[in-house]
Amino acid sequence: MKKATQQQTKAHNIRLILNTIYNTGEISRAEIARTTGLTRTTVSDAVGELMRSGLVAEVGIGPSAGGKPPILLSIVNDARHLIGIDLANSEFRGAGVNLRGEIKTHIGLPIYDRDGDAALELVYELADQLIAAADSPILGIGIGTPGLMDVRQGIVRNAVNLDWHDLPLGKLLQERYNLPVYVANDCHVAALAEYTFGGRETADNMVVIKVGRGTGAGIVLNRQPYFGDGFGAGEIGHIVVVEDGEACRCGHYGCLETVTSSRFVIRRAQEIARQDPTSPLHQFADTPEAITTEVVWQALQAGDPALQQLIAEVGRYLGFAVANLVSTLNIQQIVIAGSMARFGTTLLEPLRQEMARCSLGSLAEETHVEISRLGDDIVILGAAALLLARELGLP
Amino acid sequence: MKKATQQQTKAHNIRLILNTIYNTGEISRAEIARTTGLTRTTVSDAVGELMRSGLVAEVGIGPSAGGKPPILLSIVNDARHLIGIDLANSEFRGAGVNLRGEIKTHIGLPIYDRDGDAALELVYELADQLIAAADSPILGIGIGTPGLMDVRQGIVRNAVNLDWHDLPLGKLLQERYNLPVYVANDCHVAALAEYTFGGRETADNMVVIKVGRGTGAGIVLNRQPYFGDGFGAGEIGHIVVVEDGEACRCGHYGCLETVTSSRFVIRRAQEIARQDPTSPLHQFADTPEAITTEVVWQALQAGDPALQQLIAEVGRYLGFAVANLVSTLNIQQIVIAGSMARFGTTLLEPLRQEMARCSLGSLAEETHVEISRLGDDIVILGAAALLLARELGLP
Repeated sequence: MKKATQQQTKAHNIRLILNTIYNTGEISRAEIARTTGLTRTTVSDAVGELMRSGLVAEVGIGPSAGGKPPILLSIVNDARHLIGIDLANSEFRGAGVNLRGEIKTHIGLPIYDRDGDAALELVYELADQLIAAADSPILGIGIGTPGLMDVRQGIVRNAVNLDWHDLPLGKLLQERYNLPVYVANDCHVAALAEYTFGGRETADNMVVIKVGRGTGAGIVLNRQPYFGDGFGAGEIGHIVVVEDGEACRCGHYGCLETVTSSRFVIRRAQEIARQDPTSPLHQFADTPEAITTEVVWQALQAGDPALQQLIAEVGRYLGFAVANLVSTLNIQQIVIAGSMARFGTTLLEPLRQEMARCSLGSLAEETHVEISRLGDDIVILGAAALLLARELGLP
Repeated sequence: MKKATQQQTKAHNIRLILNTIYNTGEISRAEIARTTGLTRTTVSDAVGELMRSGLVAEVGIGPSAGGKPPILLSIVNDARHLIGIDLANSEFRGAGVNLRGEIKTHIGLPIYDRDGDAALELVYELADQLIAAADSPILGIGIGTPGLMDVRQGIVRNAVNLDWHDLPLGKLLQERYNLPVYVANDCHVAALAEYTFGGRETADNMVVIKVGRGTGAGIVLNRQPYFGDGFGAGEIGHIVVVEDGEACRCGHYGCLETVTSSRFVIRRAQEIARQDPTSPLHQFADTPEAITTEVVWQALQAGDPALQQLIAEVGRYLGFAVANLVSTLNIQQIVIAGSMARFGTTLLEPLRQEMARCSLGSLAEETHVEISRLGDDIVILGAAALLLARELGLP
């Protein structure tokens, strides 16, 4: 075995112990030693250090196993706050999140038409406000943004909507705030959020398909986010699924995104609002810009067969994409997130049927497709989860 | 860190040293100590053990760095032979392979109509002959077979063509020969072959698409074969790509396999042979069963526009599948193997064009699609590579 320096070994042991406490909730020093195989002295020293840093506290007395009853340790959930930022919406949103993914403060700043430097200024403004609002020491900043990233260097290679090209966002924020900063694709961090805070920690592998203004996937493989050779994994929104279909912002035609994104659904709903006097959406005939996915969802519940068909169509296209994923990766846990996730089973049923039709029966049978429970904060939580994993090795 | 028993540490060190010798070709004990960070004593003891087992030998004297010139060590390539078996063809084929993937003996036994127990008997016959023919100690047996496997338990879950269902092939062979046996899907081991013996060791990730009687993929992720949650990764042959297409043996219609496999190409070539008197294939009008992919390839080289179109069509469907893979995984190294690989650039050009049309430009640009150099022995070599990795941790 390679010689590990004493310091590396110590850092490794502290992370292992912190992880054990995080995952068990309450645990004694003796139990930590049993679980990790470390000596009691090593455990005691590390726990001492974690207590001095405020991350761990003694929280009570456990049941005696004969001798002296053990003191129980627990994570101090608010010992650090994580700044999570989501740049994938019509407003830049951020939150202060504690070590358990509980949102403590929440701020949204509308983008309007800002891009380039003006959009960067808005990120600063958001981060300034979030840092000012925090009432715990801040561990760092995590950012989820659409487009291609270099996660290792924190560089936004290309974010078309924001007109950012090779922007060293991570470095800029790090220098401004003197805090650790991590930047990743919004779909990639959404997968990490689902894995970390979505109650799905038991699976080794998972795919989250985020369907909002864009369509993309995040993949967790062997309990780690998978980015791909060039950080471009999960760009399934640009698979061509309609021959001679509509133009996509990527320059091609008929991409999955053109027939599944919220922009597509809203545009089609606007047509229905104008053209169909029997539709519950007809009240928006003169104010089509007020139609959101939430408005469409309410009209659907009020009963509108055209909208039902529209969402079923989206579901079938997504089902084809899921069939692809399942056939390629045989990952059995698939989660749908993003603003389109609100359509629930109206979306899921046709999706599941199409998935079963377009992939091997035995693979499809063992695949579970579900809706995310994390709602609109999934990217914020994922950005926080990335930070938590990289800085503290949690969970 | 968990306490490793002395024995585990020793086994780990021996593997590390064996690996270092394997990958460098010729190396001195001192150089091994420098590369691995192990003490000279540990290296000397382990090398002694490896020399006693015959795996490593002293092969010469290296240049002096001042003092006594060092003795160079090397792997003894024929110290062990690996039995590799390929059950994915119209004959069962096997070979004795040395530690460098050089084929030493080669045996093929036609299957005719055998399936079930009769097919199993044929596997025994093949293994008997291969073991009898070996002139080095045998390390074990590796098998690549079509269908769904449980790699961990060596069980063939479902191999439709051979009518095997939940067959404990690994255990049966292990008991019969008292040797380690590994069984995996033919496409999965093809990827391992390409990675181990195809000169592509520098990539972390790679996909091999094997297009022969069936179409499937094998994925290497982070330098390891990726099997999926239920060992079903890479079943891309059953993605539906033609609406209302031909019936597939999986029970669905229009699967990728139905428009890309050698069976499809041969059937279409047989039609051309019958119907087109100007085709070089017309000489096979009365003996269509003699048409193989090799025959088609020769007719294509002799000049036949209909065949050119046919292979281009196959290439485009594969290109769509590659676009899917690239968009999902952003793996930049894609290799085409199997009997259809002989069509070379006639297949690759339309494939690459369709890949570029159906995926994000920046992803497609950085993706290299190539033809495997391993030819028809790729599954045999992959089965051997699986054995080599599991038994000796090589390479």
